[in-house]
Formats: sequence, C-alpha cells, structure tokens
Amino acid sequence: MATIKVPEHVPSPAEDCEQLRKAFQGWGTNEDLIISILAHRNAAQRCLIRKTYAEIYGEDLLKELDKELSSDFERIVLLWTLQPAERDAFMANEATKRSTSNNLVIVEIACTRPLLELFKVRQAYHARFKKSLEEDVAYHTSGDIRKLLVPLVSSLRYEGDEVNKTLAKSEAKVLHEKIAGKEYNHEELIRILTTRSKAQLLATVNLYNNEYGNPINKDLKADPNDEYLKLLRTTIKCLTFPERHFAKVLRLAIDKMGTDEWALARVISSRAETDLERIKEEYYRRNSIPLDRAIAKDTSGDFEKMALELIGHGDA
Amino acid sequence: MATIKVPEHVPSPAEDCEQLRKAFQGWGTNEDLIISILAHRNAAQRCLIRKTYAEIYGEDLLKELDKELSSDFERIVLLWTLQPAERDAFMANEATKRSTSNNLVIVEIACTRPLLELFKVRQAYHARFKKSLEEDVAYHTSGDIRKLLVPLVSSLRYEGDEVNKTLAKSEAKVLHEKIAGKEYNHEELIRILTTRSKAQLLATVNLYNNEYGNPINKDLKADPNDEYLKLLRTTIKCLTFPERHFAKVLRLAIDKMGTDEWALARVISSRAETDLERIKEEYYRRNSIPLDRAIAKDTSGDFEKMALELIGHGDA
Repeated sequence: MATIKVPEHVPSPAEDCEQLRKAFQGWGTNEDLIISILAHRNAAQRCLIRKTYAEIYGEDLLKELDKELSSDFERIVLLWTLQPAERDAFMANEATKRSTSNNLVIVEIACTRPLLELFKVRQAYHARFKKSLEEDVAYHTSGDIRKLLVPLVSSLRYEGDEVNKTLAKSEAKVLHEKIAGKEYNHEELIRILTTRSKAQLLATVNLYNNEYGNPINKDLKADPNDEYLKLLRTTIKCLTFPERHFAKVLRLAIDKMGTDEWALARVISSRAETDLERIKEEYYRRNSIPLDRAIAKDTSGDFEKMALELIGHGDA
Repeated sequence: MATIKVPEHVPSPAEDCEQLRKAFQGWGTNEDLIISILAHRNAAQRCLIRKTYAEIYGEDLLKELDKELSSDFERIVLLWTLQPAERDAFMANEATKRSTSNNLVIVEIACTRPLLELFKVRQAYHARFKKSLEEDVAYHTSGDIRKLLVPLVSSLRYEGDEVNKTLAKSEAKVLHEKIAGKEYNHEELIRILTTRSKAQLLATVNLYNNEYGNPINKDLKADPNDEYLKLLRTTIKCLTFPERHFAKVLRLAIDKMGTDEWALARVISSRAETDLERIKEEYYRRNSIPLDRAIAKDTSGDFEKMALELIGHGDA
C-alpha cells in the first residue's frame, strides 16, 4: 500500500507549475511550497507537471530543482520527481559506477520490481545512458559478483503463482548441497536464484528450512562480512520478503553513525507509491518505534519534512 | 523487406473464417483454399481471423488446422498462423526440449529479433509455458553452452547506433587475446558478445578483422564441428549480418540429403513479414539460383505451394 496523500482536488498542472516557479524565484527558495506540491502528487501527475513546466517555461523542472535545492533534500526531491522507471535506471547506473558503486542497490532493483516495471527500467536505461543495464553491470563487475548480478538484472522472471513441488524439493537439495560444501558460487545455485519465479523460489527456501533445519539465509552467513554472501542473502530476501528487506535498509540507515540519507531517500522515494505502508509495519515490528518518529528523531530540516510527507506522517 | 502479398481488398475476418470453415468441411481438406487465405494475410489480420473464428465457431483455429493438416505442410501453416512473439516462444521452447533440442534456434531468436519483439517473446513464453525462457534455457543446458545461451536470451541490448571506437578497439583486443589463447569460453569474451549493442559489436568485429588479419568467425573455426564454437559463430553472424545467417540456414536446409523442411518453415514463417526479400538477395548471391526456384526443385505438394506463396513467388 502506498503512503503518499494526494488531495481530493488537485490543482491543474499549469497551476502547480506556476506555484513551483514562484517557489524558485526571488531571494531564497520556498522549500515548503515545493514540498507541499510535489510530495502530494502521484507519478502520473508529476509527469504531467514536468511536461507542462517545460512547455510553459522552456526549462526542465529537474534542472530547476537541481539549481535551487542542495544536498540530501535535493536528492530526495529529485529522486521522487523522476518517474519510477527513470529513477531506477538512474540509481542503477549510479550503482555501477566506481565512485558510487553499490551492488546492493542493483540486487534490490532487480529483485523487487515487477516484470513490466523492470522492462521499463531497462528501456529507460537505454534512453538515458545509450547502453543497457546488463552491459554496464557486466562491464563494471567481475568474478562471483558478476556471475550473480548479470543474470539477476537480465532475467525477467515468470510472475505466476504456480509451484512445482517436486522441483522445489530437488532444488532445495541442490541449494543445501552447494551451501554445505561452501560452493556458494556454484552455477546451479546461481541458476536457481536468478531464474526461478518468486513463488517457486519461496517454496524452495521454505522446503530448505523444513528439511535442513535452518533458514537458508542463516546458512549463507558463514562469513557475515563477505560481500558476495551478503548479496546472495539480499537476493533471497528481496525475492521472498521484500518489505522486510526494505525495513532493514531503513533501520541500518537510521541506526548508522551519521544517518544514511541516501538510503532513506532511495527507499522512501521508490516505495512511497507501492508498499511503504507494509514496510512501515515491518519496521515497527522490528524496532518498536514507528518509522516516522525514528526519522523525525534522526534527520532534520527540509529533508525531514519531505521524507515525513512521503511516508504519510500523521497516520502513525 | 517483407515478401508476403496482401490483396488490396481483403475480405472481412468473418468472410475469411467462413471460407476456412468450408475448407475444413466435407470429404478431405481444401488445402489450396487455406493457402490462398492465410498466406495472404499479415500478422494483425491473422490475429483477427483467429479471434473471429473462435467467436463464430467456438473453436481454436490452430486446433482445427492441427486436426485437418499433416506433416511439414501442417508445420509451416501453424507456425505462420501464430503471432510472431507466440511463434518464437513456441520454437524456443521446442528448442530447449531434449527430443527437439536445437541451440542454434535459440541463438537465432535471441540475436535477430528487435528489443520490443524480444520482450513480447518473453511475455508470450510466460503466458504459454508458465515459466521464463531463460529459466528453461538455464535448466536444460550446462557448461559452456549454458554460459553463452543464458545471457544471450536474457539480455535486452541497446539498439542505438552510437559507437565507442576506443571501446571497440580495446574489446577487439580482448577477443583476439582470448581466441588466440583458445579461451573461447572466457567470461570476458562472453560478456562482450552477449551485452554489447549490435552497432558496437559490428565496429568491434570490423576492427578485429583490420587489426588481426582474419574475420573473427574464421578464427573461431578451429574445430568446425565443435558445437560451442558453432554457436559463437552463429551469435556473431546473427548480430552483425542476419540476412546472411538466414540465407545460409536456407542453403543448408535445401542442400541437405532429404530437405530440412522444419528449417525452411522456421525461416520462411518468421522472416516473410520482415526481411525475407533481403535474405532472398543474399541467397541468390551465394547460390546463383533464386530461392523460389531452389525451393520448387527441392520440395513438393502443399508445403511447396505454401512456402512459395510466403516468399513471394512470381517476383523472381
């Protein structure tokens, strides 16, 4: 469930643009006005606003925001204003670059977006970067991480809920054999995790738990700091229980010495229109404090205001 | 350029269905009537006919054709009647099965269809087989062939014509090093062939030819009967010069002891609405006999009639 609140009577895109233009003009920028508009428009509405802004003022709204805003507040507003597929393409591209490398973001996008959305992300990547996502991921990674990430970002999993129980059993056995033998990079293990449907994989990891006594992610924790193992665990978590994955990302971002606003901006902007309500529940279940209160305690200023509007502050 | 001829005044789908129904009824089947209708309707029209047939007679046209026709003629009519994405999904699925395994078909589909079409093929595969194409390919292959085929069917290459010459040069060098060292299954070689755009790859193999004195496919012929090497050559040919690949498939199908009607049916049905005109040129250039004459000499009966109608017999 989404968390953003769109007013019953939304001003026309032209009116919104006029207000935004006002917010940019004169001495200083009116951040509150920007938040009051953009945080309360859905993706289709924001898309129209951007189009209308370009028509009326001949400028790209994103460039204006970039000019007027700064630091973490700029980041969350820009990410939010982008269309979902554009946003994912942008974040994935950033994640493949050396200076902003972040393989977890790649796994997260590849494993939590629905099929049609993934296709749009790959199209948006082509349009913006004149290359394909898998091309950049393959080029910028190597070894085991490449072996895992390239098929992860390339595959378009079947989305039906049919489960083949015999297959689940035999593949749970394969996973257990490879993990027990510490062959974490075995091609069969990678094949299963990167190609099976979410429903099938859920059945497989449940059988794994039943048959071999441990949740699979516990068995994949041999070396908690090994990046490849961490990505394997993230893959499984994102495919089988995405809300818990996101709740954990939020927890780590907030608990960190010096809050990780980038992680907050990523999760909030990409989930506020889909399942952030469920993520908030998971967050509360694990941390005994509502997400909005945790964020209010840990962040400040315009970033805090924007984040709270997007997570539907006031419900909590 | 397409080769099929659609009449200027096409009967309504209901009229076509009525004629088809007549062709199925009574003693024997009127194959000529079936050919005269289906071979002269484009994909959108055939789709409408199928829909209309189900509405009027409550039967699936494909099942009727399956019941009424037989052997190679049935094969080419059924393949032709399917929508392009359905046809590719069907052929790719067949190609992953042990009894009808054909890795060349998988390479051909993955490397010659445009981006949007490939996405539709993968959707059609989901819809029909309740699994993903990459899932089946990964499950049914192993070793080097899996290492090549899974990324081939999974990637959605960038389709722009931008070329990075520096990159082409460095990757031509990588390809040459790996091939010279007989490391044909090296992950860098596979990465380049499976992720780069067609324009970029064309520049790379041209540079390879200029710098190292041989066309890359010649250097990949160390063991002409090795299946993996054959698939590598097919990959490169399909990506850089698809018409020549198809012309060769046709030549081998015709020259074979006992014509390979399945290969003919595959190429003709899948190219008649796209580039079969160009393929015919390539065929003539290499064999000094027009494709229609070669097919007329080598096949017979209803299969011959259908094939000739689809390749635009009478132009030659």
